[in-house]
Order: sequence, then structure tokens, then C-alpha cells
Amino acid sequence: MMRAMPRSPRSHPIQLLPVSGIPEIKRGDDLARLLYRACRLSGTPLRGGDVLVVAQKVVSKAEGATVELSSVRPSEKALELARRRAATRSGPAKADDPRLLEVVLGQSRRIVRDEHVLIVETHHGLVCANAGVDHSNVPGEDRVTLLPRDPDRSAARLARALGRLTGKPVAVIISDTFGRPWRLGLTNVAIGAAGLPVLLDLRGKPDRTGKRLEATIVAVADELAAAAGLAMGKARGIPAVIIRGYPFPASRGRARDVLRPAQEDLFR
Amino acid sequence: MMRAMPRSPRSHPIQLLPVSGIPEIKRGDDLARLLYRACRLSGTPLRGGDVLVVAQKVVSKAEGATVELSSVRPSEKALELARRRAATRSGPAKADDPRLLEVVLGQSRRIVRDEHVLIVETHHGLVCANAGVDHSNVPGEDRVTLLPRDPDRSAARLARALGRLTGKPVAVIISDTFGRPWRLGLTNVAIGAAGLPVLLDLRGKPDRTGKRLEATIVAVADELAAAAGLAMGKARGIPAVIIRGYPFPASRGRARDVLRPAQEDLFR
Repeated sequence: MMRAMPRSPRSHPIQLLPVSGIPEIKRGDDLARLLYRACRLSGTPLRGGDVLVVAQKVVSKAEGATVELSSVRPSEKALELARRRAATRSGPAKADDPRLLEVVLGQSRRIVRDEHVLIVETHHGLVCANAGVDHSNVPGEDRVTLLPRDPDRSAARLARALGRLTGKPVAVIISDTFGRPWRLGLTNVAIGAAGLPVLLDLRGKPDRTGKRLEATIVAVADELAAAAGLAMGKARGIPAVIIRGYPFPASRGRARDVLRPAQEDLFR
Repeated sequence: MMRAMPRSPRSHPIQLLPVSGIPEIKRGDDLARLLYRACRLSGTPLRGGDVLVVAQKVVSKAEGATVELSSVRPSEKALELARRRAATRSGPAKADDPRLLEVVLGQSRRIVRDEHVLIVETHHGLVCANAGVDHSNVPGEDRVTLLPRDPDRSAARLARALGRLTGKPVAVIISDTFGRPWRLGLTNVAIGAAGLPVLLDLRGKPDRTGKRLEATIVAVADELAAAAGLAMGKARGIPAVIIRGYPFPASRGRARDVLRPAQEDLFR
């Protein structure tokens, strides 16, 4: 976590620049180079201080984190889960495929809720539906993507490579769209991060009346991911967005630092 | 909820423009006029199609939704809650003030969790810490703000007035920073909205491989609020941000539509 740095009182605009022209990504592709080139071709070459938000899906594809469901043999546990879910079905039947459930279980530490959606805690500690295993924007009827094995490491690798190509430091967020309790709909959140603070601690800073702010730690990486979500658009095939003009101190923040420890979580 | 509109494949940048020069707001102030003027003085006069995200605090102050704690006589229930909380204190002592707790209880339908933070369901249906009752950025040691009584109505009123001043339709989001389960830190979310979709339904739209997207409803008003949060900065006294270049269909979305019905919520 980073203490907030002093900032100039004058605020500047922040830009969200969609990066188009990223081809369908295959295992082993040099994603950093493809992203770097797509930024240039979009008319917005990367600059130092930019935050590049990259959708998890292209990272997973480049890392080969995909599974062909026809190659999966569901365990007894997955078959049992599929039977139970089918009996009380309200969601799409695809989500009850025992092969898919086998993949989801393999990505999970434990099941948090098994009701109209299957909410798990992944081996990363992320709490989300279906462990982030997903069909959409994956070519082929039977292929799914997994979340990257270590999204912070993936982000660090991309940030290093993009920094080399750009000649200046570039921060990277790897994002995915997750649901949440209490509120409907999905929002884009940070599942991996490198080169920027993930939580910004404003505690003790004066507010505009001079009183000290209490209990104010802002999840800036999630706000950056959400902002990028506005310019991504799942249906439009824009898997990366440059955020330009957001001032931040260099930092070794990791997206895993935003995960609330299970023992402190009142809702798990 | 709105079905996504067809969009051109070419994406355009989105800008987050912080609005500075908003004076300390007092009950009865013409907030729309002050915001309109501050946008002009910030060098970014409002345009049709802009989304103006306004921090709850200035709306509450303009509406007189503030309470002087010295005028509050705590009920037996608030005193009991204060005693219980003081016994297991881990947060700041200010949050255990029985007068504050009396105000929080008055804003709440029910207590969702009473542990190191007090999480309630407000009379609006919002689930958040301390019912959004807050000391920060309020002049005076003893004064707190409440959430606006009907934030969607407040947003609609602002949107109408700003539309008249601008001569073009302007959308308005009223935002506050809330915590959430599973993930640390606060993010800015929409508690009131007018003139734009709050949930964007992409179900049935083709993804880039031509498959139909499943289970994809994006909480765009929350993503817009989070994006604005990046440019607000509680410590910098920027209570409003223009989001320019985000394409959306005119809509009668209300922020209350994003509230997950209690009976469908697995975590309440």
C-alpha cells in the first residue's frame, strides 16, 4: 500500500484511449510487442507514465491458459455438482456442463456459494463466478479461458517488456469483469498489476476543511480497471485501453494486495 | 436496463475532466448553477452528451441533509450499540459515538453486520458502512452529512437544471465511495443517476468470435463513478468530474435499479 504523494492543487484531465487493432491472440504470441504496435497503430503510442489496462482474456490466450472441454473428463464431484445445479437450473445450461465445472473446480480453493451462480475462491484468492473460466471471445465452441496463473507476474512481465519498448516506465493492469454482492451487474476490476499503487492510503491526510480523513483507502487499481472498462466493450473487441494523465507514484503494488484476507471478510 | 445500442467499430477517447472552483456548499445553494459555472471556470464548459459525476457530499449539503451531533439525543438502542462496539473497538473511536450511531440507525432499514465496521442497509436499499453518514469534508467538528433522501431524484433535478443551462441534455451521476466484500479499499459508485443507462445489457450480442455473450450486464454507472473517482480525490476538494466522449443512449436509468433485490442476494 502506498501513502498518497503530495499533488499539485491543479488537476489535469485523464484520458481513456481504446487500443484497437489487436489481432486474435494465440499461445506463445509476444503480447507486449503486439500491444505496443497496436497502441502506435491506434494513433496513441505508449508514453512514460501511461497505465495500460489489458483484458485478462488476451493474457490468458498468450500464456496458453485455455482448455478444450472435449479433453476434460469430469470427476465424480463435478458430475454431482452438475446434477445438483441442473435440478435447480435458472442460469444458462452451458454453465452446468460437468466438464466446465471440472475446470472450475480445478481453479478453485473452495466453493463460496453454489446457488443460481457458482461463486468460488480461486487459487489466487479471487472471489468470483465460475473461477473466471469463460467461453466468450474465445474461438471454438468448446474452448474456455482460465485466469492467468499469476496475474501479478503476468502484469510485471508485460510492464517490463513495454518499458523496454517504450524506453520509459509503463504501468500495467490486467483486468476482468466480476460481479459483486449487493449490486447488480459486472464491473471491470484489477486482477493483476505492476508499476502503480493498488491501494492509495489517504488516512491522516487533511480534507478540504483541514480535518484528517479517516478510514479512506481507495482501491485505485480497481477504479482504473473500471474506467478502462468504459472504453473496452466486450462486444467491440477492444481488449486494451491506455489511461493517460493519471498521476501516480512508482510503486510495487500487486493486485493480490487488494484481496481482503478471508479471516477479515464478513461476507465469505 | 437498456439494450446496448449498435456502435461504430471505431472507438474514441473518453476524457475525465476535473471541475475545480466549487465553493463550500451551503443549504439552499443553487448547486446546478454553481456546477455549471465551475465547469466554465475550469475551462471545460458543459456540452450535450457529457456525464457530470457529482460527489454525494455537495448534494447533501445543498439539500440540507446534514446533522449537528450536539443536537442528537441517542436512543437506548444507539447507546447499547455504542457500548457493544466500544468493547470490541478496532476502528476509530469517533465511529462509536452514540449520537453518530443514532443518526446511522435513523438512516437504516436494518443492520447487515455489526463487527469492526457497521454495515447497514439504508432506507434507499444501499448496503454500506455507517449508512453513508460521514464527517469528512464537512466544516465543524460535530457536523455530519447524510446521504441525499432520494439520490435519483436529486440527480434528475440536477440533470434538468443543467440541461436548461447548457441547452443540451446532460446526464448526472451522484456518487459516493463505498467498501465492498472480498476486496479491500473503497471505490466510487453511483448512488443516484439521471439521463443515462445504469446497467447495460450485452446479453445476446455477438462477441468478436460471433458467439453470443452470456450473463453480461455491465454496471456502467458504477464504472463511470469509479472513473470519476480517479479525478476527484477526496483530499483535493474536487467534488465533480465531467466524463466526455462516453457514448450512451438517452435513458431513464435510475441508480436504484442497480440494487440487487435482497431476496436474490447471496451475501446479505
